[in-house]
Amino acid sequence: MKHLTPLLLVSLISFQAQATDWKALPDSAPAPADNPTTAEKVELGKMLFMDPRFSSTGTVSCNSCHNVMEGGDDSRSVSMGVHGKTGGRNAPTVWNSAFHSVQFWDGRAPLLEDQAKGPVANPIEMGMKDVETAMERVKTIPGYKTVFDKAFGKDSMTVENAAKAVAAFERTLITPNSPYDKYVKGNKTAMNKQQVQGMNKFAEAGCTSCHSGAAFNGPEQKLGEGFYVMFPTFDNKYVSKYKLDEDKGREEATGKATDRGMFRIPTLRNITDTAPYFHNGSVNDLAEAVRVMAKTQLNSTLAEKDVNDIVAFLGALTGEYPEITMPRLPATSGTSIIAD
Amino acid sequence: MKHLTPLLLVSLISFQAQATDWKALPDSAPAPADNPTTAEKVELGKMLFMDPRFSSTGTVSCNSCHNVMEGGDDSRSVSMGVHGKTGGRNAPTVWNSAFHSVQFWDGRAPLLEDQAKGPVANPIEMGMKDVETAMERVKTIPGYKTVFDKAFGKDSMTVENAAKAVAAFERTLITPNSPYDKYVKGNKTAMNKQQVQGMNKFAEAGCTSCHSGAAFNGPEQKLGEGFYVMFPTFDNKYVSKYKLDEDKGREEATGKATDRGMFRIPTLRNITDTAPYFHNGSVNDLAEAVRVMAKTQLNSTLAEKDVNDIVAFLGALTGEYPEITMPRLPATSGTSIIAD
Repeated sequence: MKHLTPLLLVSLISFQAQATDWKALPDSAPAPADNPTTAEKVELGKMLFMDPRFSSTGTVSCNSCHNVMEGGDDSRSVSMGVHGKTGGRNAPTVWNSAFHSVQFWDGRAPLLEDQAKGPVANPIEMGMKDVETAMERVKTIPGYKTVFDKAFGKDSMTVENAAKAVAAFERTLITPNSPYDKYVKGNKTAMNKQQVQGMNKFAEAGCTSCHSGAAFNGPEQKLGEGFYVMFPTFDNKYVSKYKLDEDKGREEATGKATDRGMFRIPTLRNITDTAPYFHNGSVNDLAEAVRVMAKTQLNSTLAEKDVNDIVAFLGALTGEYPEITMPRLPATSGTSIIAD
Repeated sequence: MKHLTPLLLVSLISFQAQATDWKALPDSAPAPADNPTTAEKVELGKMLFMDPRFSSTGTVSCNSCHNVMEGGDDSRSVSMGVHGKTGGRNAPTVWNSAFHSVQFWDGRAPLLEDQAKGPVANPIEMGMKDVETAMERVKTIPGYKTVFDKAFGKDSMTVENAAKAVAAFERTLITPNSPYDKYVKGNKTAMNKQQVQGMNKFAEAGCTSCHSGAAFNGPEQKLGEGFYVMFPTFDNKYVSKYKLDEDKGREEATGKATDRGMFRIPTLRNITDTAPYFHNGSVNDLAEAVRVMAKTQLNSTLAEKDVNDIVAFLGALTGEYPEITMPRLPATSGTSIIAD
């Protein structure tokens, strides 16, 4: 993992603004060696992802906060779990999450396989006692056995395999062919004039110093190796207005004071579909989010024309969502599995 | 609407057990004259049905309690709405609900169009102030306008049209081709020997006196005309054990003491996928539900062999769920619409 101090950040900005390497979104996502993506795992993972019965109340699924029918999040500032409990952070989109080198805002899970286990046992999210208890519920539903068998072989109903299946499904959640992707692949009419102006301004202003790479979420890292930046970097009116410095960020995960305020860089893909913005969901308007980022991270006040152009460019990052068929979830049978 | 007193019920039982008219499930559902089903309405209705943003918290959609990926319900004894609030009744399945002549356990909505408006403004379900406020949220999401335009023409974003669209979608939720359907259409190997025995026993015991017709939910009525029966009819150990007489039933809807304990007859279609059972979700096991019904409605104690045969037959009522593509829900844009 790498941390950038404000000074380093400034030097990186100067460098990258001059040599922007625009990349299109790949059609497939990298997978760890021990979990190659297969159709059978993806199908099982989709079922587990959509199934609310592995929350204490039977009402919250992965999809509740990472709704793949929307922008992969929940339109809320902070997510709401079982019994109406709320956490302190905004749900990151699950779309293109496979292109993150680490998961969660504070990067506390190196891989999607690790991330998938987190919310299940979080008392304010899915509220199960632990992932093993959730897996006992899966086992209680007769229809799941054959799906695990197909994906992982006999006697494969384990927490590890469930997490692998969910991760395999998530690696299919890719939104290619945005106007930006078509543009950088050579179709120069795929973006309009304002979007191209915004793209240039985006680089010139220094946004690419952090929002780089195909997913606009930082320089490419190996899976599991995070890249973190200080947020907010510069103190100004926005920091107090939007309470941007109240979350300790990665310090929550590592316990190290040097990690205070360090966050993983969120993707900008489909950002038109993922309001509200920031780790605390404090800003609803994309133009305002651009102003805040410019001021808090780059200490610059953008002209309104530049803000609008950048917003137009960000709109060009919204891609094509693949069609997803609803999974058929096997029946709960004979005994009640919902305790809450 | 028609009510059956216990005495009438008994005479009807004698009649119908001798002349059972077994019907297959139709491929399409009846629609009211002012809301013919169209592909455009169905698409809009699917979007509204799946969209959680029209609940106060943005976390509860129609699909939360009537999950079409499962048996059209929520696997809970009583449903859970916003902030973890619970009601007193079990969510009826939305699958084949188009074949009910009235909606809700107490029949308080004549049509699916009326039903669709109920949960939105129910404080323990979706928790909106009223349906108009929910409609204001729909209007705040820019992408919905073109979908309403396609379904209903210009300036059509009204509560009435939203309800019509949801009803049109629900009328496509039909599960044909169960083993039973194939059997009554002439394929005599579609059900096994035990299922056929159970079918005969089901009629002989008198179950068909209420669970008749293609959806096993009562004699055919015009849309909006309900058919109600007293539940429980006979007082016995099950009534207190499962608290079957605590719900006033249709009296809650009409205020008439003569409607106390009257309920709409639930469909038995896909009953293997809709545990727990009864208006209060008090019984998880289908065999136990059969025992309870025989005793409380017919005052008979079935032999365990007959219970098992009837359960086998009920399993033959589980049909083919059509494949459903997830709708793409338009983005919330610019302003926060979630207040709770």
